[in-house]
Amino acid sequence: MKEKEFINIIKNTLHSKYIGDDCAYLKDLGIVVTQDSLVEGIHFRRDFATPYQLGYKSVMVNISDICASGAEPLYLTVSLSLPPDIGAEFVKQFYEGAKKACKNAEIVGGDITGAEKIYISITAIGSVRNRRISSRANAKTGYKIILSGNHGSSAAGLSQLINGEKQSKFINAHLMPDARIDFSKKLAENIIEDYAMMDTSDGLMDALAAISKESNVLMSIDFDKIPFDKDLKSFDNYQDLILYGGEDYELVAAVPEKYVQGFVIGEVKSGTGVEINYTDKQVLYSSEEIENKLFNHFKENL
Amino acid sequence: MKEKEFINIIKNTLHSKYIGDDCAYLKDLGIVVTQDSLVEGIHFRRDFATPYQLGYKSVMVNISDICASGAEPLYLTVSLSLPPDIGAEFVKQFYEGAKKACKNAEIVGGDITGAEKIYISITAIGSVRNRRISSRANAKTGYKIILSGNHGSSAAGLSQLINGEKQSKFINAHLMPDARIDFSKKLAENIIEDYAMMDTSDGLMDALAAISKESNVLMSIDFDKIPFDKDLKSFDNYQDLILYGGEDYELVAAVPEKYVQGFVIGEVKSGTGVEINYTDKQVLYSSEEIENKLFNHFKENL
Repeated sequence: MKEKEFINIIKNTLHSKYIGDDCAYLKDLGIVVTQDSLVEGIHFRRDFATPYQLGYKSVMVNISDICASGAEPLYLTVSLSLPPDIGAEFVKQFYEGAKKACKNAEIVGGDITGAEKIYISITAIGSVRNRRISSRANAKTGYKIILSGNHGSSAAGLSQLINGEKQSKFINAHLMPDARIDFSKKLAENIIEDYAMMDTSDGLMDALAAISKESNVLMSIDFDKIPFDKDLKSFDNYQDLILYGGEDYELVAAVPEKYVQGFVIGEVKSGTGVEINYTDKQVLYSSEEIENKLFNHFKENL
Repeated sequence: MKEKEFINIIKNTLHSKYIGDDCAYLKDLGIVVTQDSLVEGIHFRRDFATPYQLGYKSVMVNISDICASGAEPLYLTVSLSLPPDIGAEFVKQFYEGAKKACKNAEIVGGDITGAEKIYISITAIGSVRNRRISSRANAKTGYKIILSGNHGSSAAGLSQLINGEKQSKFINAHLMPDARIDFSKKLAENIIEDYAMMDTSDGLMDALAAISKESNVLMSIDFDKIPFDKDLKSFDNYQDLILYGGEDYELVAAVPEKYVQGFVIGEVKSGTGVEINYTDKQVLYSSEEIENKLFNHFKENL
């Protein structure tokens, strides 16, 4: 839980109105900006991913944050710190993967330094032109909760990698995720009302809990409406994978009914926390319970 | 020399027109952006700098890059990766130093993760509004070469720290540098012609060599005109400290005569490389010779 404690210290030290969403929205410049770092041994392992996959995913993670804000991903800077045993071929493949993930965006700078482990830090900039920007604090009672795609695949793939498996559709979902650029574009270009959107990088429940907390609403979800790959049922803990598994990089949003797209999985109600409705029961989680579960089960498992 | 080799690989992989200057100039957004990473044991040592100083300098390094472009520093994102032994007090002091260094700019985001060593990656964004943006490729024959302030102090301070000293004006120059915000603003707001500007983060000679190379000109410098703290003469290698010592974060520019400000240290001539004129001799260095000297003497000394 140290990470959350540190973020509170940072908020209290900086008194910034910007810190809270996936991206900072800089109105005067008409842009959003986000930065994420990936550390070898914490966020990835060299024996799980090729340099190409690592470059691809590192960029995609940041593009996903831009998409979560509703902005158009345009530019990235990439900073790489590399141990002495890393050679030219790694750098070439990493940047080929990074370039592929950029799609219409472009890498425009960054730096390269030495280090003992691989550190990757990427900043992405998006344009807000003709788009309406989301905020976690914008969910309102009566809004529909929508989702862009399947959940649980990436976490299933990670568990297969940890078990020594090398190839599967789930492993592919884990190593080569795709940010939901089109889902974001369609919503942000058309909507003329406030809305909440996040990516599910830390799991669906994490995103739902964050929107609940920042908007001070109850997120009521029908479990059976959450889309997932049916082969996930071969995992004993598939329900946990769907709800708590991270790194699917789908988008979850709370929007007025007329802007519904993708999968409708529930509704915003008055109250607090996240309510999961199963066919035979209903379970209510507070944001704090979800944070604890996330940290215990998924966040520190590499 | 691996760093330079990797940068060439990156350039060849990305085919980007942006990579080359301290900042990428994103014309459509009216901004410049830069990202720099600092790695414990490579760029800094925990026993040399307090967390406050580390936060201060990390931000200032990036603000200096924005100033080098001529833009106005506005926003920063800060990504910190911290080993488990780092506590709340470190984070608090680091961000207090970072905030102090921001002056009129603001930290608007970033992230915090675990790591084995401290890893700091900062992105800074500057506005180009009412400013003319510099490029290393813009130096022209007949332009005057100007400098914002003293050189050699920071490298002298680093050598004192390595020798076990704790306090001196040079150590202060090394740990708490100040970016030349006013020098940059005055020049970029007034100039209506192309000009070249860089900060001297990797040493004065490195900056002169880079401008020479990108502009395909000879940078002719009068050594006696380079400003430095006279107490530097107590160091046997003070001439090397002035020319090759890094991290003074001054600005060097090549501008038409009517925009001269600060210290005039030489003139742009036709030719290639960097020429240093002493009272009794003249030495011509190629960019390659300067790069080699930099890497051998100063770049990997921590």
